[in-house]
This record gives sequence, C-alpha cells and structure tokens, in this order.
Amino acid sequence: MEYTGYYNGNIGPLEEMKIPMLDRVVFFGDSCYDMATFRSRRAFALRDHLIRFYNSCRLLDIHVALGMEELAAEIQKCIDLSDSDRGCIYWQASRGTRLRSFAWGQEHLNANLIMYAGPAELEPEGKEYHLRMQEDTRFLHCNIKTNNLIPAVLYSQRAREDGCEESILCRDGLVTECAHSNVVILKDGVLWTHPQDRLILPGVTMNILILLAERLGVPVRTEAFTPTQLKDADEIIITSTGVQCIRGVSLDGKPAGGRDPELLLKLQKAYRDFYNANTSRKAVLDEAHYQQPGMDRS
Amino acid sequence: MEYTGYYNGNIGPLEEMKIPMLDRVVFFGDSCYDMATFRSRRAFALRDHLIRFYNSCRLLDIHVALGMEELAAEIQKCIDLSDSDRGCIYWQASRGTRLRSFAWGQEHLNANLIMYAGPAELEPEGKEYHLRMQEDTRFLHCNIKTNNLIPAVLYSQRAREDGCEESILCRDGLVTECAHSNVVILKDGVLWTHPQDRLILPGVTMNILILLAERLGVPVRTEAFTPTQLKDADEIIITSTGVQCIRGVSLDGKPAGGRDPELLLKLQKAYRDFYNANTSRKAVLDEAHYQQPGMDRS
Repeated sequence: MEYTGYYNGNIGPLEEMKIPMLDRVVFFGDSCYDMATFRSRRAFALRDHLIRFYNSCRLLDIHVALGMEELAAEIQKCIDLSDSDRGCIYWQASRGTRLRSFAWGQEHLNANLIMYAGPAELEPEGKEYHLRMQEDTRFLHCNIKTNNLIPAVLYSQRAREDGCEESILCRDGLVTECAHSNVVILKDGVLWTHPQDRLILPGVTMNILILLAERLGVPVRTEAFTPTQLKDADEIIITSTGVQCIRGVSLDGKPAGGRDPELLLKLQKAYRDFYNANTSRKAVLDEAHYQQPGMDRS
Repeated sequence: MEYTGYYNGNIGPLEEMKIPMLDRVVFFGDSCYDMATFRSRRAFALRDHLIRFYNSCRLLDIHVALGMEELAAEIQKCIDLSDSDRGCIYWQASRGTRLRSFAWGQEHLNANLIMYAGPAELEPEGKEYHLRMQEDTRFLHCNIKTNNLIPAVLYSQRAREDGCEESILCRDGLVTECAHSNVVILKDGVLWTHPQDRLILPGVTMNILILLAERLGVPVRTEAFTPTQLKDADEIIITSTGVQCIRGVSLDGKPAGGRDPELLLKLQKAYRDFYNANTSRKAVLDEAHYQQPGMDRS
C-alpha cells in the first residue's frame, strides 16, 4: 500500500478507510495527534513524539487504551505495511464515539485511534523559505497538538497564495511561532526561542535543535522577540518534523537573515547528523532525547 | 429511523453512517455547521440559519455545491425521514476530501455535506440555569460557526462537573458569550448584548430576541459588560437554538438575576409566541427574520 490507513486496529489503503460519523472528531475536532518521519522504516525521535502525544491526551482528558509501548508497536506495524522506506507516520486519538453532546459526561469514552503511514521526503539540504507575517488569532491552547486547526489551514493557504512557504504569527506585538512550525532566530551568536507556554507547540525538532545548540556551546535565550527583532535577526530558522531546520530568507517580500551563515550551517549539520545517527539503528522506541517542557499546563 | 444520517446525499441510520478518513474535518476540523429545531416537521428560522451557514462557508472559503433552496430541500428530506415530529436538524460542510495538507491548494475542493435529524425537546418553560465563569481561551474567529470546538467541549464538561448548565466566558475583563450559547442581561429595563464582532457567534435566537425586544419598546444597548455588571444585572438570559431564552439564576454558586421577572417573562413569552407562530405553517423556507450582522468579517 502506498498509504496505509488504520482505524482502531483495522488496516487498509488510506483512501478507502472510513470512520463513524459519530466519532467526536467530526463534530468538535475533539482529538489530538502527533506525527514523526521515518527512514529505513525507523521513526525518528518516536519516544519524544509519544511523550508529547500522551501529554496532549492528558491535557484534553482523552483516554487512549494502549500504553506507549503498545502504541509504538502499532505505529511500527503501519510503517512496515507501507511501501515506503522513508516517509511519515501520523497518529491521532479522538475522544470517542457518541451522539453529539458538548460535554462527554460522567464516564470517559474509549478513544478512537486513527493512523496512516506513507511516503514523504524531507526538504532538500539548502532549501530556503519565504515567509509572511500574519496575526496570531488562534486559541490559547497551542501547547496541545489538537485537530482544531482551521487558523493554521487559513494561514497556510494565504502563505501559498502569496508565494511563501510559511506564515509567521504575531500576537500582541510578539512573534509566537508559524502556522505549522516553530521559529527561532540567531542574533549575535545567540539562539532565541519563544518560551514554551500555552502560546506555542513544544516542537520536537526545536527542542532537539536547542539541545544540539547547547552541546555546541551556543547560548540559548528563552524570550519572545518582536517582529522588528525578527527582521533584524542574523538568521531565521523554521523548525518542524517535516522540514527539520530551514533557513528563512525573506519576510513579507523583503530579504531577511543571511548574516550568520556559519552558525546556521553548523546547526543544520548538527541536526542532520543527529537525525541520521538516530534513524540507522533497529530499536523501535529509543529513550527520549530531551526533557519535555509544559507537562503541567492545561 | 430515530436519527437520520446523511452524507453527500446518502441516507441511513445515523449510528451506521461513515465518512472517509480523508475528509478534511478529520485532520483539521476544517468545516462549519449550523442547526435548527423543528416542530410539526417544520424547521424554525431556517433561512436565518442558512444565511449564517453560507456566511461561515464564505469566511472559510468552503465551497458548497448546493444553493440555499436546494440545501433547504435536503434538510427537509432528513426531517421527513426521521421518526420525530419535533427535534433538531444539524448540517455541516467540510472543505473536501484529500490527502492531508494544511493548504488546500490552487483549486477549491468539493465540500462534503453531513447532516442528521433526530428527536430533541426544548427546555421546559420556567427552566433555570446555574452558571459558572471561565476564561475565554478561544480563537478570534468566534463569529464563524466552525467545528473547531475543543474549548467549548472543555468548558461544557467543567460546567457539568460543577453542577452547572452553562459556562459564561470572560476575555480581557469583558464577558463575551457562553460555551455554546449567547448571554444577554437586563438592567434598568435595558437589554444589553456584546457587539457582534469576531469574539462571539451572531446567535439566531439572540438576534430574534433583540428584534422582539425592540418591537416591545425595550431599549437595546450593544456594548460589552464586565463580570461585575453581569453579577449586578437585574436578569441574565442565556439564548441558543436548543434552549431558546433561559433565565440564569446563579453564577459561581451565588444567586444572580431575579430582580426584573416581569420584563424577563414578557420577553420569554414573546419569543415562545414567535416560535409557535413560525413553526405552524407549511413553507419550508420562510423569509429571514432579521438582518444578519457580521457578513463582511473574516
């Protein structure tokens, strides 16, 4: 199968998979998800993604019957059934199936598990992103990886219509993150990131990049920056599972970054090496690579 | 059928209906909806609901193939097939079916139409609501009736766990609306409502209540009020399609309202009479009852 689909243990071609209309994702988007890339049929940073996923479930009070090791085994099954040697694996838990009612009631429902695996290529080395600023109109639960993603859909579409690859979001005069990535900047040799609070997703790629920066002796400053500081940054780096660490080269049609290529390339190489080293072994579920922030926020 | 389900023209018992996993509602909640009540198999204020629905579609750039009259006929078909003489009719349009990608691309997809009809009773006359305040953490697109409803799910569940029927939301020191209703107050003979901007849904019930208040000579003040003004209100009225105009009698465990029962009962009676008059005739799709605000906002 090119794209393997999965619903509560049933597997088939993704295009033919169906879910009940009464799955609460249909009426409320009442679900959360995570995804990872794989290479040589081995998912990268799977435990980090799974820790974040179960944290999303906990914050939404969604009860997944499978434990982490069991879910990792189901994920591996989907990867193994797909035609691709490299690709992406996506999984999602919705609160359950029931007649429409906002509150779910006294008892927890059994979560429904959706999954798919299919081909996906990472962005090529040296790829550059054109960016545009947009108002961050999202809810205040951005630390949870939910399927309430209409704002991200609209930002992404507008970016594409403007010939850009990503939208950078600004709320109350501060840059938060992107439509479906994080953004960090380099300035005077320091890597700046937004605090990992309820305004941004605690990105797995961003956190690994922070880890690698620290290992390389690059100071990390955890403080929100303004659009002006973004424009004046030495380099802009867009991070996500799908794109890894991409250089931003323009912002609203004006050149941006490009002032510290040495540090940028050093960090990009460190990330690529780390990715390669961690997708070449056989273990399905390694140890976590970093300590996750935001495990106590709702 | 007790609950009639509908997906793109296919009809069956709701519990057995399925939708494709690749419907964009599954990954992004990328859809909008509306619902109405019916009595004697006749939907109330259907044109008002449909105008709001198509406005939601327009603001999200979702393309529904059916025009308003055609959709009204499909809605009537679902009502006629349900066992119930009185109930609710729900309809929803998602952007379309395609492999997961945030942007939908250069061409519009064909929207998928979900519907169901089933039994539902209005709240009995004299019903009272206990309320609790919660922080309004939602996105800034609350004027669009989307299926990105996780915050409303969480507020509703917390209200229920606290023995309340609804949550009243407060953002930046001002009351906006409820988890799935609007809220208006009576003070010194004036009906106060939040401006119909991107922070609240332009409620059909609320707008009809405003219309009826004006007909009765009750002054209407369109200005946001604070939690303190809410506590000091003569009466609190919760309005929605499902509950009509319910009196709020407590707020965070303390008695509230109850200081102008005469005006409250007059408005409730005016609404009930209007509802009865407009569900006793045969026409499927009457004229709209009021001019809809917010038709030009994104």
